[in-house]
Amino acid sequence: MNPHDLPPATGWTLARRAERMNPSVLREILKVTERPGIISFAGGLPSPRTFPIAEFAKACERVLGDDGAGALQYAASEGFRPLREAVARMLPWSVDPEQVLITTGSQQGLDLVAKVLIDEGSRVLVETPTYLGALQAFAPMQPAAAGVPCDADGIDIAELARLRPGARFLYVMPSFQNPTGRTMSESRRAALAQTARELALPLVEDNPYGDLWFDTAPPPTLAARHPEGTIYLGSFSKVLAPGLRLGFLVAPHAVFPKLLQAKQAADLHSPGFNQRMVAEVLRDGFLERHVPTIRALYKAQRDAMLAALEREMRGLDMEWNTPQGGMFLWAKLPAGLDAASLLPQAVEQGVAFVPGAPFYPDAADARTLRLSFVTASVAEIDRGIAALAASIRAARERCAC
Amino acid sequence: MNPHDLPPATGWTLARRAERMNPSVLREILKVTERPGIISFAGGLPSPRTFPIAEFAKACERVLGDDGAGALQYAASEGFRPLREAVARMLPWSVDPEQVLITTGSQQGLDLVAKVLIDEGSRVLVETPTYLGALQAFAPMQPAAAGVPCDADGIDIAELARLRPGARFLYVMPSFQNPTGRTMSESRRAALAQTARELALPLVEDNPYGDLWFDTAPPPTLAARHPEGTIYLGSFSKVLAPGLRLGFLVAPHAVFPKLLQAKQAADLHSPGFNQRMVAEVLRDGFLERHVPTIRALYKAQRDAMLAALEREMRGLDMEWNTPQGGMFLWAKLPAGLDAASLLPQAVEQGVAFVPGAPFYPDAADARTLRLSFVTASVAEIDRGIAALAASIRAARERCAC
Repeated sequence: MNPHDLPPATGWTLARRAERMNPSVLREILKVTERPGIISFAGGLPSPRTFPIAEFAKACERVLGDDGAGALQYAASEGFRPLREAVARMLPWSVDPEQVLITTGSQQGLDLVAKVLIDEGSRVLVETPTYLGALQAFAPMQPAAAGVPCDADGIDIAELARLRPGARFLYVMPSFQNPTGRTMSESRRAALAQTARELALPLVEDNPYGDLWFDTAPPPTLAARHPEGTIYLGSFSKVLAPGLRLGFLVAPHAVFPKLLQAKQAADLHSPGFNQRMVAEVLRDGFLERHVPTIRALYKAQRDAMLAALEREMRGLDMEWNTPQGGMFLWAKLPAGLDAASLLPQAVEQGVAFVPGAPFYPDAADARTLRLSFVTASVAEIDRGIAALAASIRAARERCAC
Repeated sequence: MNPHDLPPATGWTLARRAERMNPSVLREILKVTERPGIISFAGGLPSPRTFPIAEFAKACERVLGDDGAGALQYAASEGFRPLREAVARMLPWSVDPEQVLITTGSQQGLDLVAKVLIDEGSRVLVETPTYLGALQAFAPMQPAAAGVPCDADGIDIAELARLRPGARFLYVMPSFQNPTGRTMSESRRAALAQTARELALPLVEDNPYGDLWFDTAPPPTLAARHPEGTIYLGSFSKVLAPGLRLGFLVAPHAVFPKLLQAKQAADLHSPGFNQRMVAEVLRDGFLERHVPTIRALYKAQRDAMLAALEREMRGLDMEWNTPQGGMFLWAKLPAGLDAASLLPQAVEQGVAFVPGAPFYPDAADARTLRLSFVTASVAEIDRGIAALAASIRAARERCAC
C-alpha cells in the first residue's frame, strides 16, 4: 500500500515533509544484490576482518566491572567527557572538548545539522555527485539541494560565488569521498577555505574515511583551516566498527548549543555503554596500531580491483579512477550504456554494484557506477570484475554500440 | 553568547525551528540539584540497583563470541530481527514483528513521530500536564501543542471532540505517567479508544513505565484496543537499563514505512551490538524474573515516600497522589506558594525536586511539583522529605500564608 493512500477512517495525516522521505534507492538495490552467491561491490560495509572484537570484549569487561551502573545509567547529551576529550586529542588541530558532541553515528550529525540549519526551501550546496545518506538526512527538512560542479580535485571554486546567494551551507566530503573515492587537493582545500571565508559560506565537512589513506595522509581538513565557519563530522564506524553507532561532530561555539538541544530532543544521548567501550579502547593508543592494518588491507584490495579492471576491461572503453584511500572506486561505462539498466544483467552474471545516478543531486551521469573494494575478498574481486566485464561486453553487443 | 546573535562574518543562519529549541528547563534544574550532598527527588533516573550488570556481561561475551563481526557491522534500519520478534512476543496483544521498529531509546520514537506527522502549525493534543521530553521532541517540527484537560483518571474525553479539528494526533502516557504518576482507568481507556475511533483521531501511546506496577497490572493499552489508530512507544530503559539507549515502536502498516524511512535518515539503525545484547538477555525469559524485583523495590520506595509525607507534612496543607506504579509522585504546595520559587530554598535545605510548571503545554499550575521516589534510598527519602517540609514551613512563614 502506498502510505499516501491512508485508510481515511484511521485519521492519519502525514506531514508534507513525508513526501520527501522515500525508500532509499540504495537500500532497494542492496536487497536485490544480497541474493546468495552474488559477489557484491555494492554495499558500503567495512571489512569485518578489521573489527577489533577481542579489544571490545576486554573493554566490555572493564566498563561493566569498573562502573557498570554508571555505564548503564542516563548520561549527558553532550557525550561521555573522557570520549569527548579523546576525540579532541585525536584530531590534528586545536579542538576544545566543549565543542565535541558525540552522535549516534555520523549520520545523526547530518540529521542535527539539517534540523538546526535548514528551513523549507533553503538552498543547500552539495558536491556532484555527493553522499546519498546526506541527501536523505537533509530531505525531511525540505531543502533545495543544488549540486556544485566538481572535477577530480573536488569542488569548482569559481561556481561557489554564483551559487552562494541564499545558501545555508556547503556540504562536502573532501577525503576519499563516498561515492567517488576522490580527494580534494591541498590547493583546492586552501582555496575553498579562503572562499568560504570571503563569501561567509558555512561549511559542513564530513570525514568518515580520512584516516583510511594508503600512501600519504590527505591534506589538512577544512575545519582546521576555518574552524569558526565549519561543522566537522567524524565517525568511529570505519576505524573501529559501525555496529556501535558512534560518531561525533565538532561545531563552532556559535552553533554548538542549538546542535546540542537538537541532540537532546532526538535521543537524549548516545549509548553511554558504547561511549565508554570506545573510550576504553582508545585509551592506550589502540587506533595508532590498528588503523595502519586497515590501511594496508584496503590498499591491497584496491590494488587487486585496479589490476582486475586493467585485465578484464581491456578494449571496453571503460573508465575508472585510482582512489588514494577509503572504500570506493568510481567508474564510467562505455558510451551507450547506463548503469541502472546494466545492474540486473550484472546480477545475472553474479556481480553487483551501485549505479551512480542516485548520488547526483540534480542532472545525473547515468554511465557512472560505484564499486566498493573492501567487502569482497581478493579472489572475489577477481571473479566479480571478470563477471562485470562479461556483462558489459554482452550489453554492448546487444546495443551494438 | 545568545546563538541567535551569531557573528555575521561566519555566515551561519539558523533555521526558524531552532528558535523553538531551548535548553531544557529540566536540564538546567538538574544541574543546580546535582550539587554534592543534595538529596535529589528531581531526576528521572531508574535505580542503578536494578541494572542487571552480570547478565549484560554474560550477554556481551556471547554476542561477541558467537558472531562478533555480525554484531559490529552495519545492520537493517528496522532493527535486529530476533529482537523485533521478542518485542512482538512480549507485548500482550497481537503484534506482527514487521510492525516493530527498534529505536535509539523511546525518545527517538517521539522524534520520528514528529517528523512524519507534524507540519509547522499542526495541532497536537497532549495531556495536562505531559511528558516534557515529548514536547521537546515535537518542538523542532513546530506544532501548536494544545493541552487536553485531565483528572485523576486521565484525559477528559468530552473535551476531545472540541479539540479534534485539525489535530494530527493525541499524545498520551496512560500508565504511571511522567510527571504525575497517574494511571488512566479501564473505563477511561475504553472510552478514549472508542472516541479516537469515532473522531478518527490518531493516538501516540507512550508506555515506558507500564511494566512497573506495584499491586496489579494497569488495564490493557490503547494500542491493544485500537491498533490501526495507534503508534505505541516502548522502552528497555526502565526494565533493563537506559545506558543502552534502546526502545521500540509498534506502528500500523499505514504509517510504518514512513517512520522507517525517517529512522534510516536519522541514524541508519540503532546499535546492532546493543540490540543483540538485549535479545540475548531476553532469550531465556529473564524479564519475567527481573521485573518483579524492580516492582518490589520501587513499591517499597513509594511506600517510604508516602509514609514520610504523612509524617512530615502534617498541618502543611500539602497534597499528593498515590501512584500505583512507575517512578513519580505528584504533589501540590499549599496555596500561596509556588514550586519554582521554593526550589532554591529547598536546595538550601539539602533537597531537590522538579517544579511542575514546565510539564504544562499551556497554563501551568505553579503549585505542583514532581517527586521521584526511585533514585534516593529509603533513608534519604526520610531525610529529604523532612528537609522539604522544613523549606515549605519556612516559606509559609515568610509569606505569612
